[in-house]
Amino acid sequence: MKAEIITIGTEVTTGSILNTNSKYLAEKLLELGIEVYYHTSVDDNIERIKEVVDISLNRADLIITTGGLGPTQDDITKEIISESLGLKLIDDEEMLEIIKERFVSLNREMPSNNLKQAKKPEGSTFLYNRIGTAPGIFIQRDNKTIIMLPGPPIEMNRMFEDEVIPLIKQDFSIIIRSINLMDIGESQLEMELKDLINVDPEINIATFPKESEVEIKIIGKGNNRKELEIKIGHFIKIIEDRFKNYIYGYDNIPIEEVVFNILKEKNYKIGFAESCTGGLISGRFSRIAGVSQVFDRSIISYSEKSKIEELGVNPLTIEKFGVVSEETAIEMAKGLLNRNNIDIALSITGLAGPDGGTDEKPVGLVYMCIADRKKALPIKYNFIGNRKNIQNKAVIKAFSELRKFLLNID
Amino acid sequence: MKAEIITIGTEVTTGSILNTNSKYLAEKLLELGIEVYYHTSVDDNIERIKEVVDISLNRADLIITTGGLGPTQDDITKEIISESLGLKLIDDEEMLEIIKERFVSLNREMPSNNLKQAKKPEGSTFLYNRIGTAPGIFIQRDNKTIIMLPGPPIEMNRMFEDEVIPLIKQDFSIIIRSINLMDIGESQLEMELKDLINVDPEINIATFPKESEVEIKIIGKGNNRKELEIKIGHFIKIIEDRFKNYIYGYDNIPIEEVVFNILKEKNYKIGFAESCTGGLISGRFSRIAGVSQVFDRSIISYSEKSKIEELGVNPLTIEKFGVVSEETAIEMAKGLLNRNNIDIALSITGLAGPDGGTDEKPVGLVYMCIADRKKALPIKYNFIGNRKNIQNKAVIKAFSELRKFLLNID
Repeated sequence: MKAEIITIGTEVTTGSILNTNSKYLAEKLLELGIEVYYHTSVDDNIERIKEVVDISLNRADLIITTGGLGPTQDDITKEIISESLGLKLIDDEEMLEIIKERFVSLNREMPSNNLKQAKKPEGSTFLYNRIGTAPGIFIQRDNKTIIMLPGPPIEMNRMFEDEVIPLIKQDFSIIIRSINLMDIGESQLEMELKDLINVDPEINIATFPKESEVEIKIIGKGNNRKELEIKIGHFIKIIEDRFKNYIYGYDNIPIEEVVFNILKEKNYKIGFAESCTGGLISGRFSRIAGVSQVFDRSIISYSEKSKIEELGVNPLTIEKFGVVSEETAIEMAKGLLNRNNIDIALSITGLAGPDGGTDEKPVGLVYMCIADRKKALPIKYNFIGNRKNIQNKAVIKAFSELRKFLLNID
Repeated sequence: MKAEIITIGTEVTTGSILNTNSKYLAEKLLELGIEVYYHTSVDDNIERIKEVVDISLNRADLIITTGGLGPTQDDITKEIISESLGLKLIDDEEMLEIIKERFVSLNREMPSNNLKQAKKPEGSTFLYNRIGTAPGIFIQRDNKTIIMLPGPPIEMNRMFEDEVIPLIKQDFSIIIRSINLMDIGESQLEMELKDLINVDPEINIATFPKESEVEIKIIGKGNNRKELEIKIGHFIKIIEDRFKNYIYGYDNIPIEEVVFNILKEKNYKIGFAESCTGGLISGRFSRIAGVSQVFDRSIISYSEKSKIEELGVNPLTIEKFGVVSEETAIEMAKGLLNRNNIDIALSITGLAGPDGGTDEKPVGLVYMCIADRKKALPIKYNFIGNRKNIQNKAVIKAFSELRKFLLNID
């Protein structure tokens, strides 16, 4: 089945918002064994939406649109697709009641333009929106499936999970496994994987570079699930043997969750002493549900004074070696470790830029230190890029170094 | 001029990575007065790329592609576009030298497949890549402009800024201004703006909802820049009068930068005491270049114990009211304010979930407190959504509340 995702809205084509819907839907569809070959975005213009829909009806079997189902004048997705398919729009009394009730329960008056959300193309089914007012629409016609979903990601995701997945499930098996690697280039990886590609028609192996990491995706597709699983396991084993030292995780687990899992298993509490990353490491870690099991506290010691006052860094160390130095990083980590709740501490101090660099200490120079009660390991990095790149890389590498440190503790 | 952006790569169509290139290019092109009507993404498949390119050559005057210029087998953008345009690929000795030198300077051996990066379609111009090895390509032919850029955002952005902009500048004027609002719905906003839309053919007004905020975009396009500026100023004045209480900034300035600017102007130092946001507020703030002028330190008191030890929260307060309470939030802020470097403190404690909610204190309940030496202002929110949504909203509202608090200080 060939699928196309169409996102409709001038806010996407003008770059006013980032198109996260296409990524979300493509990932979900791949898990269902449906391959997405095209993503298209088009502005809120009748002729161009019509053109894009017609091209898509010609080349795809499954079309999912997002956006343009709201109450405003710009919201014309339903109208245009109905026209392209030659279907009339009809009122749905039940949906009208649902929308009215929602406004009552919110204690808000319903603007008259919300009325059009209760219309649907003849022969189609409404998809229930648990979060917003715009219902989705499901149409099957001439071997094509067309699904219209609302634009706001929170509404769209929920509707896809609850309403769409049960309607489009496949009857063959697809298994996707990912292996996540760090500190290796895509070019090298692809060369050393060459002999594994195209070996088995049911197995597809591809590499995807991401910021500071590479993903190897193994996609198996066939009728015998058991057999597929064994085959994929075999490929994973070979890849593990070849790239052992680069693999940090599987199935796109974020690096911070790998660290979280190791800490949980070892029953360790961690704390971060951040300077140049200003809370980005702690913040990212705190995205994890249940992180309180392993995360005790952090000190964001952005100013020089706060490094001294909060972490007990010796002013003479700063005077002699500077705030961005191995020595300061070590004292920051040790200072945090002095709190009796913390078993392991990571400190980071560096120059994120854009200003403040010198020949001796350029922007991008970052020192970390990971310490437990037995040892303190300082690490030095020289990152390239703008402030954002440097901070991002520092965060990823902090978790990567933590992982290695933790695996080396008995 | 009608423009289309084509991103090429299976990593995009399968949802393995987020397509940030289209957003970046669309925004930049709009600033240059070039309207992007279509974004298309297609997987690394010869027939489908060819089909997408042919459709685009038919409907757009300017086509910018990203991706598929690398050294691997999958990288076929240049080959396909050359074929569609009927152009031969020829070797470029100069580019070959540049690529070779780069590998020498990196002290790495050049893999043989990097050779193909030195080929270009006849009559085209190479665009220099300052960061990676894949050069871009610029072609003008039959009133169409085709620009091929590399996929990695850091390489693509730099090449666009340095090499592409000088080549595609327009000779008429375009002025874009944005007004950013919070705490108002898009539907209400659109209704109250209706009479301003389509008043002037040179001025286009549109609204764009974002997470927790709405943007009003005013786009002026014409030959007389001075006149356009006056007209746009006139529209801005009207909008300001109508929505005064909702406007927090202009031209998509992030809310944290609004706060940063006010703090800088007032010469205040700030600190954050974060619990449920775990560093996300501080981290976001630390993205700002030069933030050290106003940001002193933060305490991420994730555990109960750390609230007591680091911020001096009274254990009895926690026992009586709970960690998620107005009382604890107030003591957290005051505790941080006790440090003599900090003029203003924001604390936050809440239930980000997914676990830990009760009937009395549900997931999404968040208390903040903003305090200076004169007063402490507690604020309560009930956010809806998953852990990520709740944390995101809490971060935005923290900065929004800070802005209001700061504007009310004499």
